[in-house]
Amino acid sequence: MSQGKKSVRELDAIDLHTHVYLPRYMDILRSRKDVPFVRPGVGGERLVILPAEQEQVERQGDVKDVGISAGRPIGGEYWDVENKLRYMDRHGIRTSVLSLANPWLDFLPLEEQIRQAALLNDDMEKLCQGSDGRLLAFGVVPQNSQTAVNEVKRLASELPHVRGVILSTAGLNGKGLDDPDMLDFYREMDRAGLTIFLHPHYGVGNEHYKKYGHALILALGFTFETTVAVSQLVLSGLLDQVPDTLRLLLAHSGGTLPFLAGRLDSCVAHDAAIAEKLQHAPSVYLKRFYYDAVAYHEPALQCLIDFVGADKIVFGTDHPFFPPPEENKQNEEGNQDLSDLDWTSTLTNYEIMANMSAEVQCAMLRSNAKKLLGI
Amino acid sequence: MSQGKKSVRELDAIDLHTHVYLPRYMDILRSRKDVPFVRPGVGGERLVILPAEQEQVERQGDVKDVGISAGRPIGGEYWDVENKLRYMDRHGIRTSVLSLANPWLDFLPLEEQIRQAALLNDDMEKLCQGSDGRLLAFGVVPQNSQTAVNEVKRLASELPHVRGVILSTAGLNGKGLDDPDMLDFYREMDRAGLTIFLHPHYGVGNEHYKKYGHALILALGFTFETTVAVSQLVLSGLLDQVPDTLRLLLAHSGGTLPFLAGRLDSCVAHDAAIAEKLQHAPSVYLKRFYYDAVAYHEPALQCLIDFVGADKIVFGTDHPFFPPPEENKQNEEGNQDLSDLDWTSTLTNYEIMANMSAEVQCAMLRSNAKKLLGI
Repeated sequence: MSQGKKSVRELDAIDLHTHVYLPRYMDILRSRKDVPFVRPGVGGERLVILPAEQEQVERQGDVKDVGISAGRPIGGEYWDVENKLRYMDRHGIRTSVLSLANPWLDFLPLEEQIRQAALLNDDMEKLCQGSDGRLLAFGVVPQNSQTAVNEVKRLASELPHVRGVILSTAGLNGKGLDDPDMLDFYREMDRAGLTIFLHPHYGVGNEHYKKYGHALILALGFTFETTVAVSQLVLSGLLDQVPDTLRLLLAHSGGTLPFLAGRLDSCVAHDAAIAEKLQHAPSVYLKRFYYDAVAYHEPALQCLIDFVGADKIVFGTDHPFFPPPEENKQNEEGNQDLSDLDWTSTLTNYEIMANMSAEVQCAMLRSNAKKLLGI
Repeated sequence: MSQGKKSVRELDAIDLHTHVYLPRYMDILRSRKDVPFVRPGVGGERLVILPAEQEQVERQGDVKDVGISAGRPIGGEYWDVENKLRYMDRHGIRTSVLSLANPWLDFLPLEEQIRQAALLNDDMEKLCQGSDGRLLAFGVVPQNSQTAVNEVKRLASELPHVRGVILSTAGLNGKGLDDPDMLDFYREMDRAGLTIFLHPHYGVGNEHYKKYGHALILALGFTFETTVAVSQLVLSGLLDQVPDTLRLLLAHSGGTLPFLAGRLDSCVAHDAAIAEKLQHAPSVYLKRFYYDAVAYHEPALQCLIDFVGADKIVFGTDHPFFPPPEENKQNEEGNQDLSDLDWTSTLTNYEIMANMSAEVQCAMLRSNAKKLLGI
C-alpha cells in the first residue's frame, strides 16, 4: 500500500464508513434556516451541521471580497453517486456501504421522520440496485423505538441492499443507548441479522472546543461521544438481555474505547454497585463489537487489533468528510470535482495497515465486512 | 512479573504516580463541610472530593444499620508514610515520587494557597529527607502564575527532594493550560529542570456519568480531561514559545492522547486556520512529553510505546486510589491496614509489561524516571 497509487487502486476494499446526503435529504437541508441546513456561499453551497458552525455563520456571514463563507464547502461528493463511484475507483474501493450522514432525521417531527425514513431507505435501495453490485447501504430509522422496530422489519423483508441501520448515540428516544426501551430494537436487529452502525454527532465536552474551530469537536468531541454512549450501554446491563450475536459496529475505531477498556474494567471492578449488575467485565462486551479502521495512525489501529482482534475490524474512509485539505481551497473558487484528487485521509487509513500481515490486511479490507454484512 | 510475588518485590521500581494527603492537608479537609472534605463515617473516615460524591452524601448520609457511609473510605494509606513504605516494600517499589492528590489547593483563597503551598512543600521536603532515599516529591504551587513562579524558584533553590510540581488541568489561573499567562511558569519550570506532572480532577462530560457511580467519571471523565487540556495547550501554539526541553508528564498514560493523536493531526490538518498557527502537527508536540504507565491493559500501554517510544514512559501506581476491591469492605468494619494486602491495580500495571523486553521494562520501571527527575 505504500508502493504507490497503482497498488491502492487494486485493493478491492469494502468501505463500511462512507456517507451520502441523498438528493431527497439535500432538499430537506436546503429548505431549512436552522442547523442542520445548506445555504449558498461564495463559490458554492455550504453545509452547516454543528451548532458551533451556526454560530460561525451568524458571526461571520459571507465575506465575498476575500472569498470566505462560513460553513463547510460541499459539492457533488456529498450527494452525487457518480462522484462517489469515481472516488471509489481512484482509491481501490470495490464496494461502499453507504450511510446517510449526521444528523440524520432527529431534527424533524416524529411523523415526518417516519415518512422520510421510509422514503430515504427506498431511495437508498434503488441507488444500490442500480450500482452493479458496487453499493450497499445502512438505512435510517425514526427516532422512536416502536416505529423503528417496524421499519427494521420492513428493511429485512423488502430492501435486500440495506444491511443495517446507522444509529446516533442518542438512541431512539433521545435517552441514550442505555434506555431500556431500546431492548426491542436491539433484539429485532439481532433477529434480522442486521448491523447497527453507531455514529456520533452531538459531541461530548463541547464547551471546551470553541477556540479551536472544528478540530477539537471532531477529534475529541466525536470520539468521546461514542465512548460515553457505548460505556453507558455496557454498564446498564442491557446487553445481558440481548443475544451476544448482536452486530454493533462502532465508528472511528470505537472512539477511545480500545485504549480505555482496561481502565474501564478497573474502575468498574472498584465500584461494587456497578460491577454486581453485570455478568462480565466491560471489556468482554466491548470485544463482541465490530470497529472500523478509521484511526489515522498505526499505534491506534494496532491497539484496536490487540484489543479486539483483527477479525472484528473493517475498513472505512469517512468520505466525503476530510477532503484533500489543500484542494479544498480550489473548491471555494471553482467547485472542482474532488473525486479527481487523491484523498490523504483515505490514503492514511490504507497506510496505517501497510506494516501488517497480508492476512490481517485482507481481513480488515474485505473478508470481515463480507462476514458481518453477508456480502 | 507474572512469576509471582517474589519477583514483583525485587523489581526496584520508581513510582511517579503515587499520592499522599499530608497531615497538614488532612487537617484542612477535616475542617471543611463542602467538597473537598473528610468526615467521620461508619467504621472510619470518609473522603469526599468530587461534587458527585457530595450529592451522594447529602442524599444518603449514614446508614449505620447496614454499615454504609457515603464518600470514599480512607485510612492510613492516604496520609501515613509508614503505610506507604510498607506498601512500597510489598510491591517492589524502591522509590516513590509523592504528590499531593487532587484537588490540591484550588478551593482556598489565593493568600491561603500561597501560605499552604509553601508549608506543604516544606513538609514534603522533610518527609523525603527522613526516608533514607525512598521518597522524592512533586510540590504544589498556588493557582496564580506570578506567585507560582516565585514558589518554583524556591523549590529549585531550597528543596532538593522536590523534583517537580503537580498541576491541575485548570492551569494556574483557572483558564486552562493554553492561557498565555502560563508562559512564564512553563519557562521557569524548564529553566529549573523541574517536571510538570499534569493530573486531572474536574472531569469532562460529567453530565453523562451520574447513573454509574464513580466508574465513568474516573474511567472517562478524567482521561478526557487530560486529553482536552493538553490538546488545547498544543493547539494554542504556546509550546512554540517554550523550549522543547520542557518536561511535561501526563497522568494515566496521557488520557486518550496516544490513541487519538492521528485523528487530532488529521482534524488539525483539515482546519487551515488552526494548522497555520502551529510550527508542527500536534503529534510532534505530544511526542515530546512523558507519560506514566497507568494504563491497566496491554493494548493501551503498547499503543503508548508505539506512539511515544518506551524512553518516554515511567511506571506509576495511582496509590492509594483503586485499593484492593474485596478488602475494601473489610475496611468499612475494621479499618484494616491495606498495606498488608496485594493491590490488584498495582499488580495489573506490572502485568501489562510482562510480555515486553527486559530492556523496555527496565526503562519504564527505573531508568526513564532517573533521567527525567535526575535521580
